[in-house]
Amino acid sequence: MQAIIVHAPHDLRIEELPTPTAQAGQLTVRIKAGGICGSDLHYYHHGGFGTVRIKEPMVLGHEVSGVVSACGAGVDDIAAGTRIAVSPSHPCGLCRYCQEGKQNHCLDMRFYGSAMRMPHVQGAFREEIVIERHQAHPVADHVSDGEAAMAEPLSVALHAVRRAGPLVGKRVLVTGCGPIGALVIIAARHAGASEIVATDIAPKALQTAAAVGADRVIDMAGTPDGLQDYAQGKGSFDVLFEVSGTERALRSALEAMRPGAVVVQVGLGGEISFPTNLLVAKELEWRGAFRFHEEFAMAVELMNRRLVDVKPLISASFPFTRAVEAFDVAGDRSSQMKVQLSF
Amino acid sequence: MQAIIVHAPHDLRIEELPTPTAQAGQLTVRIKAGGICGSDLHYYHHGGFGTVRIKEPMVLGHEVSGVVSACGAGVDDIAAGTRIAVSPSHPCGLCRYCQEGKQNHCLDMRFYGSAMRMPHVQGAFREEIVIERHQAHPVADHVSDGEAAMAEPLSVALHAVRRAGPLVGKRVLVTGCGPIGALVIIAARHAGASEIVATDIAPKALQTAAAVGADRVIDMAGTPDGLQDYAQGKGSFDVLFEVSGTERALRSALEAMRPGAVVVQVGLGGEISFPTNLLVAKELEWRGAFRFHEEFAMAVELMNRRLVDVKPLISASFPFTRAVEAFDVAGDRSSQMKVQLSF
Amino acid sequence: MQAIIVHAPHDLRIEELPTPTAQAGQLTVRIKAGGICGSDLHYYHHGGFGTVRIKEPMVLGHEVSGVVSACGAGVDDIAAGTRIAVSPSHPCGLCRYCQEGKQNHCLDMRFYGSAMRMPHVQGAFREEIVIERHQAHPVADHVSDGEAAMAEPLSVALHAVRRAGPLVGKRVLVTGCGPIGALVIIAARHAGASEIVATDIAPKALQTAAAVGADRVIDMAGTPDGLQDYAQGKGSFDVLFEVSGTERALRSALEAMRPGAVVVQVGLGGEISFPTNLLVAKELEWRGAFRFHEEFAMAVELMNRRLVDVKPLISASFPFTRAVEAFDVAGDRSSQMKVQLSF
Amino acid sequence: MQAIIVHAPHDLRIEELPTPTAQAGQLTVRIKAGGICGSDLHYYHHGGFGTVRIKEPMVLGHEVSGVVSACGAGVDDIAAGTRIAVSPSHPCGLCRYCQEGKQNHCLDMRFYGSAMRMPHVQGAFREEIVIERHQAHPVADHVSDGEAAMAEPLSVALHAVRRAGPLVGKRVLVTGCGPIGALVIIAARHAGASEIVATDIAPKALQTAAAVGADRVIDMAGTPDGLQDYAQGKGSFDVLFEVSGTERALRSALEAMRPGAVVVQVGLGGEISFPTNLLVAKELEWRGAFRFHEEFAMAVELMNRRLVDVKPLISASFPFTRAVEAFDVAGDRSSQMKVQLSF
Repeated sequence: MQAIIVHAPHDLRIEELPTPTAQAGQLTVRIKAGGICGSDLHYYHHGGFGTVRIKEPMVLGHEVSGVVSACGAGVDDIAAGTRIAVSPSHPCGLCRYCQEGKQNHCLDMRFYGSAMRMPHVQGAFREEIVIERHQAHPVADHVSDGEAAMAEPLSVALHAVRRAGPLVGKRVLVTGCGPIGALVIIAARHAGASEIVATDIAPKALQTAAAVGADRVIDMAGTPDGLQDYAQGKGSFDVLFEVSGTERALRSALEAMRPGAVVVQVGLGGEISFPTNLLVAKELEWRGAFRFHEEFAMAVELMNRRLVDVKPLISASFPFTRAVEAFDVAGDRSSQMKVQLSF
Repeated sequence: MQAIIVHAPHDLRIEELPTPTAQAGQLTVRIKAGGICGSDLHYYHHGGFGTVRIKEPMVLGHEVSGVVSACGAGVDDIAAGTRIAVSPSHPCGLCRYCQEGKQNHCLDMRFYGSAMRMPHVQGAFREEIVIERHQAHPVADHVSDGEAAMAEPLSVALHAVRRAGPLVGKRVLVTGCGPIGALVIIAARHAGASEIVATDIAPKALQTAAAVGADRVIDMAGTPDGLQDYAQGKGSFDVLFEVSGTERALRSALEAMRPGAVVVQVGLGGEISFPTNLLVAKELEWRGAFRFHEEFAMAVELMNRRLVDVKPLISASFPFTRAVEAFDVAGDRSSQMKVQLSF
Repeated sequence: MQAIIVHAPHDLRIEELPTPTAQAGQLTVRIKAGGICGSDLHYYHHGGFGTVRIKEPMVLGHEVSGVVSACGAGVDDIAAGTRIAVSPSHPCGLCRYCQEGKQNHCLDMRFYGSAMRMPHVQGAFREEIVIERHQAHPVADHVSDGEAAMAEPLSVALHAVRRAGPLVGKRVLVTGCGPIGALVIIAARHAGASEIVATDIAPKALQTAAAVGADRVIDMAGTPDGLQDYAQGKGSFDVLFEVSGTERALRSALEAMRPGAVVVQVGLGGEISFPTNLLVAKELEWRGAFRFHEEFAMAVELMNRRLVDVKPLISASFPFTRAVEAFDVAGDRSSQMKVQLSF
Repeated sequence: MQAIIVHAPHDLRIEELPTPTAQAGQLTVRIKAGGICGSDLHYYHHGGFGTVRIKEPMVLGHEVSGVVSACGAGVDDIAAGTRIAVSPSHPCGLCRYCQEGKQNHCLDMRFYGSAMRMPHVQGAFREEIVIERHQAHPVADHVSDGEAAMAEPLSVALHAVRRAGPLVGKRVLVTGCGPIGALVIIAARHAGASEIVATDIAPKALQTAAAVGADRVIDMAGTPDGLQDYAQGKGSFDVLFEVSGTERALRSALEAMRPGAVVVQVGLGGEISFPTNLLVAKELEWRGAFRFHEEFAMAVELMNRRLVDVKPLISASFPFTRAVEAFDVAGDRSSQMKVQLSF
């Protein structure tokens, strides 16, 4: 069985691993599709991000779908041959945060393809994987393998939207329309937002934003003052989803926010200089959104019930054997949204 | 009738103004006590703050109490001789934010002693003032003039506490224990916080924090690592009230906050460099708190019912004719908390 | 100018009224379409409901659309000829509840076609009406007069949905699928509900529920135990919208609700025997939903942006001169949803 | 070792049980004090309540304190001799509700002295008991055994108060001032309620309500219209805690509630006839409150920090050998609040 393993920056190899076997309560899954995420790209290009660094070879990947090939002892509610989306999240269930229902803050989280702990948690870009039963979410026949592999980033977007509180009747701004930003647009529309304005500087991102439902897209490269009209009367938007992780995008949006507006920070942006006086005078709320938990099941259900359509986001697919090429293409924001691998 | 008027930085004069007369729906009030606030000090020392600057002579003051001396036509539910706290806040009641119940964001706010609009809104450090009926809040006999003049900063603290959501059973950190910080401690205790830890670098502030109910005070000048123990297990505090307005205090606290913690920003701090990745990974919520509205009536009621005691905060009182001396003393954090004027 | 006036139970007359003239800040509107509501039917059949009784002749109607025919002095932001939905709600804006943003609880509310106060507030089933500027909400060209007249009941449904809190990922039950129930289904779907199950006993209502998006409809006449499967494991639904106003429907649903579920009561049901022990043991929340305020603008915006489709609800339309016939037909649940009048 | 065992209505016996031994992760505890709760009285007088019935002999009791006498293997963070309050709640930690942080709705809950499941969960009125480590909450020296045994009902009151949302500045009504009602008054005061009005019909309950901090008590036996003044202007109270479990008390209060008020149902009341139209027109929220989870630790901390004083509620104490007498006295509302047993 083969897997995609990062050894160091720009050292990505396809290597043989032993075929795993499901234990009691587990499933063996043949992986079908896997999406390349921003964090995968960070490991590939830079060997990590922030203080997180690869210290040993690590299988990448956490956005995957597959087919159940074998069931471990005691698993009788899912059959071999079932097509599934695989949740890459494996909280301990016992720590104080799990017991508060905040599993995304688990003190002993195991999340696929993450170098946050040592030994690293190996990822899911591999031909076969063994998972816990609760990680398997069956998908409907009309959901393709590629769409099923979008359940993970859609979960992130749904979690961000749920962090914002009710959106019915709200005016929403989204800054940054890469794959997560576009999924946030889809999720915000699904959640009842009345109006959605989206900004970016890449034409491909802006096109996709419009295609998935933004009422208006603004190219901040061409019109840096594009949000100024929304600043009248102390501001227009009730909610901002900041997905770009850039200080410039965040600050361009703040004047356009109404008093009491919620700013959901989805993009990782390092150190950002923030105008506290504006936060105070407008009583803004700047909230982080981190991963997901129960949203994975919701994401799969939304696709199964045809309540959302993520297909416009999948911009390219490569056989996993061409992983290096796929990773190189995935880094090109001018032409790509989500690049996937097929197994 | 005399008033305390700022003309320019360090040019504070006691000058004669015409005696005002109450119109229909109004009251004439003889001012008894007035507290010097940080914004008064900014006008006195720097002629303003941020982009707000004195452009014409302005009576200072917005924390005042007094006695009703005459009632305008149609006012029959309050009698001359009634001792009152005076709310300095006068929203329009009609704009979109007023109609949403967010009067502190009124598009046409008139707030005493503020140079935010031109002509400036004249303040309340004067022997007599005419106010709207709804600005008058009767105080109980046992509430002194000085305590009544604390209703305004207590309102600010109550508003900050209400912005935090329910505090019952919560662990609370307060950074910055000047007058507002100490009132936040009082208000947080009143709201049911289980444990309150407070930090500052001035001994007088730390003493007062302990006197008004902090369970523990930490001198960050002497022990810059004083919050490190609270960072174990992803953090300890549910809520942070950041009252100092300094980047250093804010950042010292972030590691000590639990996942999902609320950070209420009360102090104005200009540009602050913020670690976005921590905001995201811990899903912190950084919320501004600005002034107050319905909290003024609450503040007076709390004092009337003896549910809080603000006396430990009043550190000095001067006759208003010695205003310049009072303003100079008020700036000394090493010895003073709230300095008041008597009229 | 003619109007539809109720004098007593089953005494509905088309009578001549003087043509009104817009004053400053007002608009004259030519009414185009009007929907017959349950309360209109109660006045027609019973002379009122509960303690509310007709004490003088009253023009009925509060679900109307029209065309601006003339603008009063000072109105310059809307032109004659503009097609509008008319909000029948006219709160005072000044009382304590209006100032808290709870205009639907205004102490001095004037709501069209209501006998709650004396003299009664005359309704809008009339050829011409004078309204305040803020009652006029322009509709897009693609929105028909009949759809525009649905803005009012859609507002009621949106308000009910907003009372429930966030619906993203939630499982929702709707009991009672008349016009309001069907609109609640539309609004709940718009708000992100994952699954919507609807119950009724009338085939026409169940058909419409399915047509507007319910995932499953249950005929409680044929299968009184139809919700029993949902009672497993302490229950399945996160939110119940009880629109029927019947004890039987409410009670049939309670066992199917999860611990902590929200029950939004929309239908007026008089005295209902409620099992308190279940409320306590499951920590249910039973919330009333009453009329609307800001939701009227949202409703019009949703139709203007094609985010909802209310057309399947309009089951018949009559010229207003055949009002008696229309009212008789409107009472037939077996064949009708919303019956409208054209003017 | 002896225990208090109910065999049938009015058949309460003190019987010998084998002395238990702590296993790994457990503690052996010598019980010191135990409070008699309403449910204990129901088992004693009626053999149960609702559909819950004694089907085998059961040790009663779930409000207890004690001293650690031995620690099982692996327990090294608490020493023999430590005085503790014992939480009677033992959720499974693994079911869907536990994983959502709603442990009080655990699908496999084991709660001391409860006949809800078969075999029954044996209670804590016994000289020695073995508990899990997490059930032990150390108390401060100044907290008596009797006060420590109040941690459980105080937890119930704290949970009810937390169900109400923030209370700062709120006007609160409490109907029913037995032990739980009085503790709700204490907890609501602690949570920042501005004004607390309490009603009952028993003088002893009303006296205690006043003693623990109610601003006003109303004897509804003497003045059945005692709440009428509060009904002006659509009502006065923001929150009602209904602790009596009687339809009469609940209905007497509804007119006095403001629009949007929250009614927390604490008392079990069986079938109650409820005026739905009032619920709708006022948009009331009727919420159940059931037991507690994290509030047990909060309750102990409040007592340890002297933030609340429960001593006024303890009206009598008997040696456990006089259990029958104690149970008979405990049923007398005219003279008793909380009756405790000493071991």
